[in-house]
Amino acid sequence: MTHDCSFLEDLPLADDQRSFADGQRDSHAADWGAEQLGEGVTPDAVVWPESTDDVSAVLAAATERGVPVTPYAAGTGLEGNAVPAHGGISLDLTRMDDVRDYRPDDFQIDVGPGIIGSDVEEYVAADGLFFPPLPSSGDISTIGGMIATDASGMKTVRYGEIADWVLGLEAVLADGTVVQTGSRAVKTSSGYNLTETIVGSEGTLAVVTEATLELAGRPQQIRGGRAIFETLDDATAAVSDAVRTDVDVARIELVDGLSARMANAYLGTDLPDAPMVFLEFHANHGVEEEIDLCRTIFEEHDVARFEMSADDAEMDELWRARRELAYAVATYDADLEPLHPGDVTVPISSYPEIVRETRRLADEHDLLIPCFGHAGDGNLHYSVLVDRDDSDQVTRGKEIYAAIVERALEMGGTATGEHGIGQGKREYLEAEHGAGAVEAMRRIKRALDPTGTLNPGKIFPEGGELE
Amino acid sequence: MTHDCSFLEDLPLADDQRSFADGQRDSHAADWGAEQLGEGVTPDAVVWPESTDDVSAVLAAATERGVPVTPYAAGTGLEGNAVPAHGGISLDLTRMDDVRDYRPDDFQIDVGPGIIGSDVEEYVAADGLFFPPLPSSGDISTIGGMIATDASGMKTVRYGEIADWVLGLEAVLADGTVVQTGSRAVKTSSGYNLTETIVGSEGTLAVVTEATLELAGRPQQIRGGRAIFETLDDATAAVSDAVRTDVDVARIELVDGLSARMANAYLGTDLPDAPMVFLEFHANHGVEEEIDLCRTIFEEHDVARFEMSADDAEMDELWRARRELAYAVATYDADLEPLHPGDVTVPISSYPEIVRETRRLADEHDLLIPCFGHAGDGNLHYSVLVDRDDSDQVTRGKEIYAAIVERALEMGGTATGEHGIGQGKREYLEAEHGAGAVEAMRRIKRALDPTGTLNPGKIFPEGGELE
Repeated sequence: MTHDCSFLEDLPLADDQRSFADGQRDSHAADWGAEQLGEGVTPDAVVWPESTDDVSAVLAAATERGVPVTPYAAGTGLEGNAVPAHGGISLDLTRMDDVRDYRPDDFQIDVGPGIIGSDVEEYVAADGLFFPPLPSSGDISTIGGMIATDASGMKTVRYGEIADWVLGLEAVLADGTVVQTGSRAVKTSSGYNLTETIVGSEGTLAVVTEATLELAGRPQQIRGGRAIFETLDDATAAVSDAVRTDVDVARIELVDGLSARMANAYLGTDLPDAPMVFLEFHANHGVEEEIDLCRTIFEEHDVARFEMSADDAEMDELWRARRELAYAVATYDADLEPLHPGDVTVPISSYPEIVRETRRLADEHDLLIPCFGHAGDGNLHYSVLVDRDDSDQVTRGKEIYAAIVERALEMGGTATGEHGIGQGKREYLEAEHGAGAVEAMRRIKRALDPTGTLNPGKIFPEGGELE
Repeated sequence: MTHDCSFLEDLPLADDQRSFADGQRDSHAADWGAEQLGEGVTPDAVVWPESTDDVSAVLAAATERGVPVTPYAAGTGLEGNAVPAHGGISLDLTRMDDVRDYRPDDFQIDVGPGIIGSDVEEYVAADGLFFPPLPSSGDISTIGGMIATDASGMKTVRYGEIADWVLGLEAVLADGTVVQTGSRAVKTSSGYNLTETIVGSEGTLAVVTEATLELAGRPQQIRGGRAIFETLDDATAAVSDAVRTDVDVARIELVDGLSARMANAYLGTDLPDAPMVFLEFHANHGVEEEIDLCRTIFEEHDVARFEMSADDAEMDELWRARRELAYAVATYDADLEPLHPGDVTVPISSYPEIVRETRRLADEHDLLIPCFGHAGDGNLHYSVLVDRDDSDQVTRGKEIYAAIVERALEMGGTATGEHGIGQGKREYLEAEHGAGAVEAMRRIKRALDPTGTLNPGKIFPEGGELE
């Protein structure tokens, strides 16, 4: 579907703030998860707003004309979240990447949505502060994108997700209305929580034009390490026990034997082909006691090796395999491509079972499915690798992918812990939340965006109104 | 305004689940903050649902007939939150006070909305768990009420507010639709965050019929104490500095000299008439180091005495004055009554200034205004005491009350940190959030409750539709 976007010529935008050129349109038709998307995803125009007024003007004019608008930034989404499913305008927010205000005394910073996550950390580092919920992609993805999906990452087990660190927003509704949400106070019970309503809504309710983020003081003690297990069951049971024993760990990441093999191939390292748990401890006091507690629990699960890094360089080396894993998986075998990445999350007591079930399905159907993830959150990333020329294998792969999601939902978990629904997981929305909740979500969507201008074709199941 | 509620006779409710008797209606026309409310607040009927089906049946029937429904529980709200401003049905949820499921391995418990907060803590205590965000009124107020106002309390400085500890809800919309929100996974980015949209909405969007709460492990080290300062400025500056230095404190409460005098009168104690800061430290390691760090900072602000309690009994004694303060203020002088309690919250760097300003206004206008509160959150509770027979004093008192709120808003703070808007703070909603945000809130209200059945006359400014 194409939309007439010539009205953009009449808006108060500079020439370099809009483009109808094929190159720009094509580059905004993709994200990291776009390969499983359908057709008609190329936007008709790209706009680079530089202010809230720009965003407001574009949205008001597009809504008046029934032209879809899809917010875009770094394009690192994994579920086609920022790809314009119905064409229209790609609203590229990367130029709104400034620090608007910084209040280190209050541990707060106001930033534009296009700022890269690690740039926030660099900005505040000299004051001993950091932004704890940054995802692993924090050095390439934007704060606006993280807010869109309520992203989280390795340190979420200790510090929570993005939503926990957003104090307030400035956002623009589809009709151009500018909305301020939240407060600079650390808590408020005044009115509805518009901040949390917008966080995680993937640009379907409003376009975020500024975010007030909370920061944290850097812990005085940081220690990293790695534990190697004989069996995957031992590794997952150890993680589950550690979390349930309330070990104060800041990262606790699972890497299965297959993933380790892939990391070796990619990095030229010689990690053992064994299930591993990567660890990081943050504390101001007593970090050794927490490490000892963790080690004791891991020993109950027959840990084969438990090694802590002596310094930052060693920690960096220990962690390298985990950090590079997504690339290692994607490049492991030229004939195999991953289906879009699994992102299920379950209650921690069910974590050993979801991993065991995934491994069982992989073995039963003779497919390569590396498993890793933010184990402390009950989060499992799994990649089903298939030969895309083998339609039978693709079909089986998709079935297994779906079976793992369904199993996670039966455990009371979620289809997506941190990537959002986008286009890739729409079929699971109602299975996870039930018809009543989906209807309530639709009502909120209709209330804030009655014409369905913002990012249509996302989150809600196909075929509904305002999809 | 009265409403014909005879349809309740036709619903599948037992006789003891509905009442039209004056005694019951009157007892549901009041909460702790009701004295400043207007007329017409007596409900026409009271219903005690015992199941989600009961709630759904009452709401669907009431909505069909245009009869308002106001959820009610312990009646401990301070802003008339649960008082039926437009009559209709008072939906008393106190019978839905059961534990539905308890999963200590996942630190989760599912409870009915009518359960008293401290009953949750008792239920889980044997497993070494607790529910951190309980407000000071946790032994008399219900989980449903806390969710309605997004309550918080003394330990919020370390553990956050109620919203941070609610994983999911079952709730009923005005038309009777039952909605499940959230997940048992500790994080999810699937769909809109209905949980956080409902938490803090004061029963105007949905009636909560079940809540999944997260629990925390009890810290191994808990130490309480008290610091006495020469001046109020010293005390507030010390608190602000301690929080900004990231001292890991679990409670840090201000009590000004006037409040101390009132506590003495009420408790027969002999506290010094001086500004005090009550402290509690939670840690698994290094609690002494944190105490030392705090002491060092307090010494920079000329602390006169810094005493830590040796044991639980001593801690209890030290804390008694703070705990009983609301009662002490209310009973201090038979001729004086407090206006409804102030609940402003500001960024921590502005805390000394808001307290100083409050003290200045009190002195300038010759009024008694005791100041206390959860200083670590930047939260200030102030009670303007007036002789209600002295209309001039009442007028001045209200002006000062309002001036303090306005000052807090100028600092980027909130009119209400934990009590909600209810009826008492409606005039501040737009001043705090702006017209755009209030319009967005109204749209969400209309979307989920188009007939305005649920708790009308709350949150939104007077005179609007669906008020």
